[in-house]
Amino acid sequence: MNNKMTEKITPRDTDFAQWYTDVVKAARLCDYTDVKGCMIYLPLGQAIWENIQNNMDRMFKKTGVQNVYLPMLIPESLLQKEKDHIAGFAPEVAWVTMGGNEELEERMCIRPTSETLFCNYWQKEVKSYRDLPKIYNQWCSVLRWEKTTRPYLRSREFLWQEGHTIHSTSKEAMERTLQMLDLYTNFCKDYLAIPMVTGQKTPSEKFAGAENTYTMEAMMHDGKALQSGTTHYFGQGFAQAFNIKFLNKENKLETVYETSWGTSTRLIGALIMVHGDDNGLVLPPKIAPTQVVIVPIASHKDGVMENATKIYEDLKAKGIRVKLDDSDKTPGFKFNESEVQGIPLRIEVGPRDLENGEVTLAIRFTHEKENVKLENICEEVNTKLEVIQKGMLEKATEFVNSHIYEAKTKDEMIELASTKEGFIKADWCGSEECEDKIKEITGGAGSRCIPFDDKLLTGKCICCGKDAKHNVIWGKSY
Amino acid sequence: MNNKMTEKITPRDTDFAQWYTDVVKAARLCDYTDVKGCMIYLPLGQAIWENIQNNMDRMFKKTGVQNVYLPMLIPESLLQKEKDHIAGFAPEVAWVTMGGNEELEERMCIRPTSETLFCNYWQKEVKSYRDLPKIYNQWCSVLRWEKTTRPYLRSREFLWQEGHTIHSTSKEAMERTLQMLDLYTNFCKDYLAIPMVTGQKTPSEKFAGAENTYTMEAMMHDGKALQSGTTHYFGQGFAQAFNIKFLNKENKLETVYETSWGTSTRLIGALIMVHGDDNGLVLPPKIAPTQVVIVPIASHKDGVMENATKIYEDLKAKGIRVKLDDSDKTPGFKFNESEVQGIPLRIEVGPRDLENGEVTLAIRFTHEKENVKLENICEEVNTKLEVIQKGMLEKATEFVNSHIYEAKTKDEMIELASTKEGFIKADWCGSEECEDKIKEITGGAGSRCIPFDDKLLTGKCICCGKDAKHNVIWGKSY
Repeated sequence: MNNKMTEKITPRDTDFAQWYTDVVKAARLCDYTDVKGCMIYLPLGQAIWENIQNNMDRMFKKTGVQNVYLPMLIPESLLQKEKDHIAGFAPEVAWVTMGGNEELEERMCIRPTSETLFCNYWQKEVKSYRDLPKIYNQWCSVLRWEKTTRPYLRSREFLWQEGHTIHSTSKEAMERTLQMLDLYTNFCKDYLAIPMVTGQKTPSEKFAGAENTYTMEAMMHDGKALQSGTTHYFGQGFAQAFNIKFLNKENKLETVYETSWGTSTRLIGALIMVHGDDNGLVLPPKIAPTQVVIVPIASHKDGVMENATKIYEDLKAKGIRVKLDDSDKTPGFKFNESEVQGIPLRIEVGPRDLENGEVTLAIRFTHEKENVKLENICEEVNTKLEVIQKGMLEKATEFVNSHIYEAKTKDEMIELASTKEGFIKADWCGSEECEDKIKEITGGAGSRCIPFDDKLLTGKCICCGKDAKHNVIWGKSY
Repeated sequence: MNNKMTEKITPRDTDFAQWYTDVVKAARLCDYTDVKGCMIYLPLGQAIWENIQNNMDRMFKKTGVQNVYLPMLIPESLLQKEKDHIAGFAPEVAWVTMGGNEELEERMCIRPTSETLFCNYWQKEVKSYRDLPKIYNQWCSVLRWEKTTRPYLRSREFLWQEGHTIHSTSKEAMERTLQMLDLYTNFCKDYLAIPMVTGQKTPSEKFAGAENTYTMEAMMHDGKALQSGTTHYFGQGFAQAFNIKFLNKENKLETVYETSWGTSTRLIGALIMVHGDDNGLVLPPKIAPTQVVIVPIASHKDGVMENATKIYEDLKAKGIRVKLDDSDKTPGFKFNESEVQGIPLRIEVGPRDLENGEVTLAIRFTHEKENVKLENICEEVNTKLEVIQKGMLEKATEFVNSHIYEAKTKDEMIELASTKEGFIKADWCGSEECEDKIKEITGGAGSRCIPFDDKLLTGKCICCGKDAKHNVIWGKSY
């Protein structure tokens, strides 16, 4: 791979952070702008996000989700209504203080998230049990005034979806909270080929204003966790602060129960760091904007362009997202470009192979090349795309399974944290003090989640030795 | 129609403005919020916008458009680079002056449009003719600090798409400018069943910073114009201000040529005011989120729910967007609700019709009802949807054609403007003075556009009597 484009990528095992930045840049996913902390999402990055959006949105709608769109501005008085919420978000919002040439009477922030606006709307809108549930979602951008930023992982403005629902019973709200975590997890498994570790957040890691927060955590290739989606059960906290009441079937006033849930362009960061390699991006076929690229070799030779075009038309007719690269770049350049951009399959159409009635199929994920008979190409491509999708999930799952460790003593935990990359399971007493201490002695392994099975290992807190309340998954994180 | 929901709608001919507001509210398209001048787009309104987005986006991509996403914030120094542009937009932007608890060194505005950000990016990115053209688009929200607002027609924040392109030649840029106007016009005709009057804006109506602005203007039922989409040819104005240069094939530095083009949620305002009637919304089948609603009558009776469900499944399998309304509301309520929301077809499934092996088909657009044999229902629905789509366009086209008048003298023009609703064609000398004067003497009929054929009627300016430069379409507008 002696090519300008791939030369720019630092080997993954040399410097993972630099490798990540290099891949983002070389694959032209997104780029920095003169607006500090904000990115431009370039065509490939945006196309991946659109594929995530379209597929997730279809899954949402099957569960009764309706899309809406609320204002991007939130008056300060609204943001302040729920005390934990404002405490959590006030330090990181951007404030609009002027409209045109006039100073505003009340300043407004650009939404960091929209719980307060949804609640404000529902308070006026909801009257009776017949108005419930409301299962709303919006696709939008939000802004949080972060100090240090990294493409897709942490930026001031980012694209996301935020779901907000209200229900007449606690049970229904809790079911929705867990249903959406399940939906997220299935989406990531089926489309992104990323297995998720799921569970409940400890109190200190909860969303500002939530009773319970549930999370899915993906393990990056360097063993660190990336929080990839969260769902929140609010109980009646916001609803009381905003006075969202309804008449129940017995004609009595009750307060609603609420949830919210979100995923963002962070998922693209996960895609890169789970599947990428030294040559760049590796995209799962189901989410790849281009699934197959066709590269003609010696395109002036008899039959090359004819066959390349025919394959292109045939694959396109079968609904495969295919691109024919007939630009005037060299085949070598095109090969490398398709590798960097993570296109799952490349079909090389050259005169020598054609003499045998064949073309070459290059598989991005395994780096293998195969000769395929012209007449079998459509079938072969279809099969390969399925095999790749499955193979990527299997590989990622094996990686996660082989990088989750168990610690029964403090020393074991310190040892594991300093010698192994991955997650560590260890029991915990439930105190924030021990949680902080564990993060300190492990050099940064914070609590990722309490897994749903929550099976104690020793029954004693790994830190203080007192009776343990939960088994926790610990890990360093992005 | 004796029903709470439709009673709320003021008759269209009694008070058009109030009728509009009533329809928006009764159909639950969007609603006001506590954020002044900003709307919440409710599920039906947002679903219509998504259908507009999906179909237009597919048309964009066929012409080589790539989607990207740029920051929502623009530093003041960037906004100021193109002098006409800042002059046009400065009075109507919202300024962010604080991030968290810190005052910003340089204030930033929330994008009112993104020419400056695109130029800033291209200046760094474009090096050679090989990098051209760039055909970018983004779907996002923008904010303009409007004083008076109306749902969909003028609000502080609104959803839109903004396309931005750069080219190596003036010719190519001009072709793209006109190509996109054409695409917009075709989209509105084919999907929204709205015929557009197109042409070039006079200099005083141009976009801030553009050399030429082209527009499509729709005629509302009250004869007023709604500017529904514009495309701009910038020449090299922005490119020079931002220094966007490339090496041409002869290795010489040249400046790029630029375009931009946009449509917004205003199109939903057009949908309402072109097709709506006293009962509410009337949606063209191609854009209706629900194309067919099935209402069971006396649903406890033998066969009603079975048949309603079977029809639902059959239509769904044919790809029709169908809803089975099996809620516990009365059939009368459901009928009215489907009328208000503009659902093109309603199938009423009741025991009496079923005895004859029939159901009733109600057509929203024509208010007709027909009995249809059960076994023909799928075919009949398909045919009807096509007939309605065609019929709506025909009706709207006839309306426009019969409401464009010609004026040859000033008196004629004043007479037409005060007695007729619609557009008036009249010749114009090209001076801004006469343009303003005509608006004054006609009680508000401004220049909408210079039509592409630009055929002079008398050769003399209708206002000053001097030689005319253009034939102009004049009209009152939203």
